[in-house]
This record gives sequence, C-alpha cells and structure tokens, in this order.
Amino acid sequence: MALIVQKYGGTSVANPERIRNVARRVARFKALGHHVVVVVSAMSGETNKLIALAKEIMRDPDPRELDVLVATGEQVTIALLSLALMDLGVKAKSYTGAQVRILTDNSFNKARILQIDEDNIRKDLHAGNVIVVAGFQGVDEAGNITTLGRGGSDTTGVALAAALKADECQIYTDVDGVYTTDPRIVPEARRLKSITFEEMLEMASLGSKVLQIRSVEFAGKYKVKLRVLSSFEEEGEGTLITFEDETMEQPVISGIAFNRDEAKVTVLGVPDRPGIAYQILGPIADANIDVDIIIQNVAADGTTDFTFTVHKNELQKALGILKGAQAHIGAREITGADNIAKVSVVGVGMRSHVGIASLMFRTLAEEGINIQMISTSEIKISVVIDEKYMELAVRVLHKAFELEEA
Amino acid sequence: MALIVQKYGGTSVANPERIRNVARRVARFKALGHHVVVVVSAMSGETNKLIALAKEIMRDPDPRELDVLVATGEQVTIALLSLALMDLGVKAKSYTGAQVRILTDNSFNKARILQIDEDNIRKDLHAGNVIVVAGFQGVDEAGNITTLGRGGSDTTGVALAAALKADECQIYTDVDGVYTTDPRIVPEARRLKSITFEEMLEMASLGSKVLQIRSVEFAGKYKVKLRVLSSFEEEGEGTLITFEDETMEQPVISGIAFNRDEAKVTVLGVPDRPGIAYQILGPIADANIDVDIIIQNVAADGTTDFTFTVHKNELQKALGILKGAQAHIGAREITGADNIAKVSVVGVGMRSHVGIASLMFRTLAEEGINIQMISTSEIKISVVIDEKYMELAVRVLHKAFELEEA
Repeated sequence: MALIVQKYGGTSVANPERIRNVARRVARFKALGHHVVVVVSAMSGETNKLIALAKEIMRDPDPRELDVLVATGEQVTIALLSLALMDLGVKAKSYTGAQVRILTDNSFNKARILQIDEDNIRKDLHAGNVIVVAGFQGVDEAGNITTLGRGGSDTTGVALAAALKADECQIYTDVDGVYTTDPRIVPEARRLKSITFEEMLEMASLGSKVLQIRSVEFAGKYKVKLRVLSSFEEEGEGTLITFEDETMEQPVISGIAFNRDEAKVTVLGVPDRPGIAYQILGPIADANIDVDIIIQNVAADGTTDFTFTVHKNELQKALGILKGAQAHIGAREITGADNIAKVSVVGVGMRSHVGIASLMFRTLAEEGINIQMISTSEIKISVVIDEKYMELAVRVLHKAFELEEA
Repeated sequence: MALIVQKYGGTSVANPERIRNVARRVARFKALGHHVVVVVSAMSGETNKLIALAKEIMRDPDPRELDVLVATGEQVTIALLSLALMDLGVKAKSYTGAQVRILTDNSFNKARILQIDEDNIRKDLHAGNVIVVAGFQGVDEAGNITTLGRGGSDTTGVALAAALKADECQIYTDVDGVYTTDPRIVPEARRLKSITFEEMLEMASLGSKVLQIRSVEFAGKYKVKLRVLSSFEEEGEGTLITFEDETMEQPVISGIAFNRDEAKVTVLGVPDRPGIAYQILGPIADANIDVDIIIQNVAADGTTDFTFTVHKNELQKALGILKGAQAHIGAREITGADNIAKVSVVGVGMRSHVGIASLMFRTLAEEGINIQMISTSEIKISVVIDEKYMELAVRVLHKAFELEEA
C-alpha cells in the first residue's frame, strides 16, 4: 500500500468523458489499496478563455484579480473529478489551494510555494477519501488567491508529494514519456525509460514541455520519485525521472531540447568596469523578468557587449527598462530580436566525454546554420540560432548523436 | 457621503459590455464621494451551465462538490468587475465569500449566513477601494465552500449592508421596480413607488421574482433600507421597500403575486389523533424540503385529509419519504400533483378592510376557476388553482382590484 500523487493536465480533463476516464484510472489505484491524491489542471482551453475575457475588459489585467479569475478553472475541475469518483462509488473530497493551505508568496501570476499544510489532507486520506487538489493555485499570508504561473500544476503535484512523503508522483500528460526530442519534429525520436533529474531539468528548461521546470527542481530537492505517463493509454510505464546514481550506465547524450519562446537583448558598447552586469540585470530582475542565457564577451577598447535572453512576451518590457537606464549604464546601443531559437544537446554522460561540442558545431556548420550565441553547462550545450533553422538543427543533431529508435 | 451596497444580478453582468456598464454606474456613485460595496451574481447562464456539467457526470451531484463548482461563477464576475473598475481608474478589490468570511452553516446548496466579518472590507473601503464581493457564497466553520441557494446574491447584499450598517442596499435587476403584478401577464401592471417589507415578503415568497425572500426577511430584521432598481436605465428611482409606518396611507391591495413552482402533496384518510401533523411533516423537514401552504381540514369519521405544497423539484422526494412512512402514519392514500399554481392578493391595507376575500373568490368564480386550496395571512389571501388558469386568474384579479396604471 503506497501513497501516490497523480497529476493530470488540462487535456486529460478536457471534457466530462475524459474526466470519467481519469476517475476510472484513479479508482483502479484506489482498489489496489493505495492512498491517492490527485492534482488537476483546468480543463484545456479554460485558462486561456478566462485570460481572454480579462483582457477584453482591461488590456493589461491587474495581477491580483487575474489570479482570482483564473483560479476558478482548476476549482471547476476538482469538483467535477470528485463527482466522477463518487459516481464510481469512490469516496472523494476536493480541495482548493487555499483550502489545503498551499501557502505562497504574494507574487501574483507567478507565486512560489512557501509551505503546505498537509494535515487535513492526511486525515481525509486515512478516512478513505481520494483527495482532489486544485493545481496551479495557492494563497498568500493575507488570504489573497495566487497562482503559480503556467504549468504550475506540476509543481503543485510534486510539492504535495514532498509534503506528504508520497511514494511516487505520477505526472499524466498527453505524451507517454520523455523523448530524445519532440517526435513531431523528428519522427524517429525515442522514448527514454529513465532520465536523470539533472537532464530532465535541462530538457524542461530548454523547452521540452513535458514537465514544468520548477516541478523538476522541487522533485530533485525533496527526492520525490517522479514518473511521466500518458493519460490516454491504459498500459505503459512512461519515463522515470531518476537520481543519477540509480542508473548503471549513462548514454553520452539523452536528448535534443529546443525552445523558440525566447528573445535576445543585446547591450552594445558598455564600459568594461566592475558592477556593469548588475547595473544591466538588476532592473530586469527587479521587474521580475526571468533571464535565461547571459553572455558577456571579453572587452576590447574598454567597452564590452552584453547579451541575454528573456521570454518573448517580456522582450518589450525588458527593452523599455534598459532604454530608460541607457544613459546611466553608458551603453552605446540597445537592441532586441525575437526571431531566435535555442537548441541544446543534453546528457549527464557528456561530462566524461570530449568531442560533444565539436560534433554539435560541425553538424550545424555542415548545414550552413550560423551560431549566434553559445552557452554550456556540465550536462548541456546550447546554441542560439535563427528561428527558421530550428527544426532542421534538431533533426540533424538527433541523427548526428544517433538518438533514433533502434 | 454615504455607504451604499449595490447588488447586480446575472443579467446585469452577462457579458463584458454589461460589466463595463455596471462599472461606469459604480464609478459615478464613487465620484459622488460615496463608499460603495458591490455584490455580484454569476454571469447569466453560467450557474446553469455549471450545474448541467455536474449532472452530466453525476446524476444527483454531491452537494459539497456542487458548491465548490458553482461558487466559481461569482468568482469570475468579481474579478472581471474589479478589472473593469480599475480600467476606469477606480481602485477596486474583489472578495470571495470565504475571503470576506461570510460564515454560514454547512447546509450545502442552501446554507444560511451566521456571521459576517466586515473588518477587512471596512479597512479596504476606507483606503479608497470599491469592494466587489461574490454573492451567493460563503464558507462554513470547517472551511468548506457553501452556497446560499438560488437568488442568494440578494441575501449577501442585504447581509453585508446590515453588517456594514450601510445607508442603503440597492438591488439592481432587469426590472425597474416592483409591479402590482408581472407586466408580461398583465400589460397594465403599475410600478409601485414603495411597498412595505411585509408586502414585499409576501410578493417575493409568492413568486414575484424581483427579490429573494430571505433577503427581504434579512432587510426587515436589520432595518436595511432596500431599493429595487433597473441596471439598464440611467435614471429611475425604482421601488423603495419601506417599513409600514413610513407611509402615510396604504392602498388596500398592493399587488397580485403568483407562483407556478409548487406542487401539492395530499395525505388522505389519516387517523385524527394528536401528533399526526408532526408524523407527516417531521420527515419532510428532516429531508430539508421546504413546505409552503399546509392545510388540514376538520376530521370526519375519525380520519382527516392533510395537504401541503412543496417545490415542484422536490415533489418526488417528498412522495418517496411519505410512502416509506405510510404504514406508520396509517394513511389510506398519498397522492401528488404538480399541475397547480398559487395566486395571491397582497396588501397591508386588507387588515382593515373586509370584503377582500369575497371579491377575490367571486372574481374567480365568475371565470369558472375552481379553487383547490385557500390559505390566508394578515396581509394576503392565496388560492391554489389549476396551473392552466393561472394567467387568467392574475389578469381578472388585477382588474377587479383596480391596480391598473392610472
């Protein structure tokens, strides 16, 4: 008898029929004697519909009220799934984020979980209930409704699994696991039986949209056993996210990730003096804009160029902030571009293998793809290229690193 | 500078354009220097849509989960109206029932308000905000979401007005006041400038759907000045609900009310012994079924007949309960009928006038309308008749009591 947290995304609960399917799956786990906590997203399309409604009324909706609005999406789903479970004769009880008390900070639209009071859930679990929790939402110290930002339901699932010390956190989605890359781009892409947390972190942050990055960080931090599965298949073991030492042998490269949601900001001709990076990125961070790649090249003639990437949606905001500070920074020019894409090769095995970078760069060069930026970590190499070459780059790299289905 | 509570129903907030209209009206009151608390219903159609969704999943939805579900309707509206106010440059802040802390009992789907913590609202009001509160919902002692039942947003408005000691509670609806009867049935129906609380109570409970009965009870109990107005007209003073002593002279009859939502249950041939009424109605009350008219006629041959009316939706449930108890009660037969309607003449003036009843019965007799049941109170006389004669009865009574537009 285990305690299992299952998370179902929007497509898995898109309509009453699918909600009934989820209920049947949950009921099977319950019938095996497991304690089950289910975390659900809003029915697919609902969140976007609510946001569109808000924007129809106010172009740039107030963040607090936007959270009040979109939090209703998950609240609808928890009630419907609880009803579907009861209809199967399974005892169930729904919880909003505030009812669990998933305490977050007060950064509306992108709140972070501070603490979870799991006592009530545990009591209701032991009384034989399946617990159905609204993903993506919480409540701040003052009682305001908050949301964790897009994809936050995964984070809710993992955080609950950590708080409850669950045996496994199963993330049900519309894919049946983590692939070497997106099968829509490379049909030969192969499902991985397991992947390390570190690799998953890179894969997720780099745009393999199977799991939300924060949920993976959480899972790693609290050692939550995470499994990605399809909610549309009865069988299948999905992909297990492992700690590195659990796997005997690592392939050199696990997959090719990509992301076309980023834009680059370049600050040209800034004085090469201490503190300049902070002067540029401080105001960006203050505005709560997430920055991904940051590159500063060696200085020449006493000035240097500074480039970083942000989400496309925040490019204009970032440019506005920097242009306001341009005189203070002493930059010659500030430019932005959103026609870029990031492509990365990821694998814990690359640590002990040389030649990964050179194979990657050679492969791209052979296709005439120009590299605009390069960024590396222990287990990944990322390049920023023109967006129009992204799919080509992913395909040739997948082949070059021999990731195809055997 | 006054403190005004305004309540807007579902049709007044049915879409973004109407929500903007409400925001403009609220902004005008705010600009006059008033403190304004706004209570809103779900956008019209939303509650029914949510209930239909629930029934698609579970035929007889669990009451707790149904409340979690339908409470989202008002939560959407408070966010949207707050955004619309902000878009006009008016500071606004939304509150769910749980956030105000509108404490109710735990009778899901038909909860009663026990207490309102108005401290936070008052603080936010004095900080210059318009407060937008979700009608119809509350929270019980254990933190469960509850709803007050259909029309409960009026009750929320009045209860808030009482808690805040507001100067006036304005109920905006799709009619511009209280009429002598429904103008759709009698085109000559006339808007009343004022009506007493007692009359309003009878009018509301008898099916003039302008105000929900509980809100009127509340308003009377806490002496809240209540005004019914149209949300679609810029001008107009609506109908003021007064305490009797405020008005100099009362017309004999204020209006003709009607209700076709009731069904009758007849228990035939019960032993005429003490306690029999309790044996019949006790189990009905235990099942939380509201009973309206109750009639027991004098006994003959040691047995008596007992008739009462319930909401049509609860007829089958009531019949089921009584048939289960038939042997215990010792009744010969239990029957039900839902093809009935109740028509009432209402007026505080009738207390001092004889002849109202006889004019009513004669008028109906002249049209050949058979009276099945009669029930009277200090200020109203109700008859139950065949549903198909209801509109005719209302028209001829309206004429007989000379209620037409002057």
